[in-house]
This record gives sequence, structure tokens and C-alpha cells, in this order.
Amino acid sequence: MHDVSHGPVAAAAFSDEERAAVYKAIYSRRDVRDQFLPRPVPDEVLMRLLDAAHHAPSVGFMQPWNFILIRDEARKAQVHRAFMRANDEAKGLFTDERQALYASLKLEGIRNAPVNLCITCDRTRGGKVVLGRTHNRQMDVYSTVCAVQNLWLTARAEGIGVGWVSIYHDQDMRHILGIPDHVEIIAYLCIGYADELYDAPELEIRGWRKRLPLEGLIFEEEWQRSAISSDPPRPDPATGLPATRSTCD
Amino acid sequence: MHDVSHGPVAAAAFSDEERAAVYKAIYSRRDVRDQFLPRPVPDEVLMRLLDAAHHAPSVGFMQPWNFILIRDEARKAQVHRAFMRANDEAKGLFTDERQALYASLKLEGIRNAPVNLCITCDRTRGGKVVLGRTHNRQMDVYSTVCAVQNLWLTARAEGIGVGWVSIYHDQDMRHILGIPDHVEIIAYLCIGYADELYDAPELEIRGWRKRLPLEGLIFEEEWQRSAISSDPPRPDPATGLPATRSTCD
Repeated sequence: MHDVSHGPVAAAAFSDEERAAVYKAIYSRRDVRDQFLPRPVPDEVLMRLLDAAHHAPSVGFMQPWNFILIRDEARKAQVHRAFMRANDEAKGLFTDERQALYASLKLEGIRNAPVNLCITCDRTRGGKVVLGRTHNRQMDVYSTVCAVQNLWLTARAEGIGVGWVSIYHDQDMRHILGIPDHVEIIAYLCIGYADELYDAPELEIRGWRKRLPLEGLIFEEEWQRSAISSDPPRPDPATGLPATRSTCD
Repeated sequence: MHDVSHGPVAAAAFSDEERAAVYKAIYSRRDVRDQFLPRPVPDEVLMRLLDAAHHAPSVGFMQPWNFILIRDEARKAQVHRAFMRANDEAKGLFTDERQALYASLKLEGIRNAPVNLCITCDRTRGGKVVLGRTHNRQMDVYSTVCAVQNLWLTARAEGIGVGWVSIYHDQDMRHILGIPDHVEIIAYLCIGYADELYDAPELEIRGWRKRLPLEGLIFEEEWQRSAISSDPPRPDPATGLPATRSTCD
């Protein structure tokens, strides 16, 4: 038998070192706009990133994604023009004091990054009825975003920076890349080796917005029942006894 | 000065061992439905997972997510009933031959998993105009999905299984958890230690759907220009010369 049978394997925790590496990828990952090096990304590295993306969870095992690699300078220039058009519109939407700061931010690395990558979601791939998408039509889109995040984290581990460009008109990008109507554009990524990364999100460092305290984002059992509330514990609906509060409090 | 100044840090690739750990998390992550152990998840571990989620990329550093932890048995039972109602409807949507297979699949671990977690997206958090969301209103939703995937991968490293339940009516879940209209429900997750994981996606093992070959999902420069196409290379629009094909071909 060459065909190895599939079966359950141990679900053990990783070693401390392995676990630390996963957290390191998550905590040191950045949205890279301005630090791309011209050094080419070898195809074998790129294929590792795409294969990691391809192993994202997908609703009904639909695997709805496609990966369009853009390396041609003329096409990158087209995409950059589409970004510029939208970004000029975007600037005008902020109040005066924010406008100057907005204008000073570099929000894309389209031409500097050696590889651009458009990740799409083919809404028709699994047929009309897809297991797990019957009651939430967006699940295939969410699967595709998981693929983006897989790629982003493995890129960090490979020393490769990724920036997500979201400022363009959908119709412009669709036209430039020839994307048909049944396919949704999820992410346009700039990819390349980077020499340096910020040690916190650039928008935090530049004073655009602060990191929110995690504790305030956590609720227990229902919306806005705060885990750090000083309210007396409500009775447990099952037992009628005061609920035991978790030490997450 | 106690305030450490933020600045650029080296963007070096991880060591081989660290890099392997990140890929291991991605390749061994599974959607867990039926292998949850009753062993409680310690609060400090849960907080590590939530903090990893909180360090996902977010558009305009909006951090639009909230985390609702559900541990109360009565509330889990309510959620399970919402799942059952939707799942009965879902079954009827498949053709006869698929219906039997569908009915045999366990698609949730709501009551078995010691912790359930609803991850939401507050569409109003950054005000009306959010940097990077001006031309794609869904970017905050995508940020929240990145948080889900961060949590899922760190859970794998901690030996904790995660299952994403998507079969319920949005209105039912909204009612059970008291979620207001301006907040979107993105994911309902079942979380707990697992003793075993499948070594491939369960839907693949059970014959629901096969993994697609990665090569067929990759295009170059535009939709459906295949990287493994035997078409003659088109002229480079910038130089007029035949384009150099990458060794991704």
C-alpha cells in the first residue's frame, strides 16, 4: 500500500520553542509599505507562502481562492494609478488636522515590492449549495481572508514583508486584472524582503490611533456584560445560584 | 526616560526551527468538532489566545473586534438549538446522495467544548471615515477574520482545538447574545483541548471534497493567464519583448 490511510494524530501542544515561534510571527508581523528591498523573492519561497495560504480553513472545503501574481512593471504602474486616484479622494474625507497626517503616511508599496499578489474568492466554486455556507453567504469570503493571514504570518517567518493595499475602486482593479463578476477581490498584497520593521503598528507610532486595552474588548456570556464589571454576579440560569466568576475578571 | 521609543527593528527571517513551527501550526490546524476534552482551558491560556487575536492586522488600526466568552451550559444549549434548527434546513438543500453523508457529519462541538467564543466586528468603532476603509467597506470585517485565524493558529500551538460554527440564523445568534445592529457577528468558535486531530481536513477524509492542486489556482499578471500555460509568452507591454516567464511555470 502506497496510499497512507488518514487517521487521527495526537493533538499535543507544541514545544515551548515552537509555541514561542508562532507567537513571534503574530506579534512581529507588520503591514509593510515603505521598507521593501529590490531583492527578488525566489519562486520556491513564494510557493511556500502560497501553499500556506492554500492550507487555510475553508467552508465546506471549498478552497475558493485564486492567486494572481503581478510582477510586470507596467501593470504595477496601472495599479499604482488606481491607488492614487482613490487615495486622492480618501484624503478629502478627513478633517483638516487629520488630512495633513494622512497625506504624510505612505500607504502602499506597489511599485517597490518585487511581487504583488491579488487574492480572490470564486463565489461559484463549490456549486450553489456549499456545506457551512447555507446560512452565512460570506463564509467563503472569510475563508479567503484566513488564507491571506496564513500567507502574512509565514512571510514574516521567511523575513518577507507584506502590505495590504485597500484603497482603490473595485472596478478599477477588476479591469486591470481582468477579473470576472462571479469572483470577488479580497486582498491586494505587496510582497518583498524588508530590511526593517517597526516594533509596533506604524499607525500607532505615528499617532493615528492607539491600541485598545484588551480587557475592555472581552465580554462574558453576552454583549457588554463586562468581564471586569463590578456588578454582583447574576444567578446562573441553570442552577439559580450566583454564577462563579472566572479569574479572567 | 521610562518610555521606550518605538523604532525600526531588523526584519530578519526566523531560524529554521522557528520557521518550521509556524508552518507546522498552519499545516496541522484542523476544524475540530468532535474531539473536545472536558479539561478546562486555563484563563491565562485563553488570554494568550485572545491577545494573539487582538494583534491581528486591522484597517486604520481600528481593532473593530470584541470577544464574547460563553461558558454557561444553558446558553450553550440555546446556541445548540439555533444550530439544530438551521442544520435541519441545510440538510434538505443537498441532493439525496449527499444528504446521507451530510447527515453523518458532526459539524459542531458547541456543548462539548468547554469554551465557546463569539468574535464580532463593531462597524462604528473608528467613526464614519476609517483610513483604508474608504473604498472597501468590508475591510473591518476582513480584519476581524484575521483575528480569528491568529487565534486558531496559536490555539493549535497550545494543543487546543478550535471549530468554527457557521450554520445558524444570524438573528437567532444576535438574540441569544444580545448583539446590537451596528455589530456584525463574524465567527462562533468552539474551543477546548482535543486529544486527537485528523491528519487532513475531515471533509477530505470523509470524501466530501478533494484538495485542489495549488498550481491550477495560480495565475500570472491577470485572471486565467495560467502559470503553467503552454501559450507562447505575450510581449511585455513595457518593452514590447516577449516576457520572461518565471520558473513558477
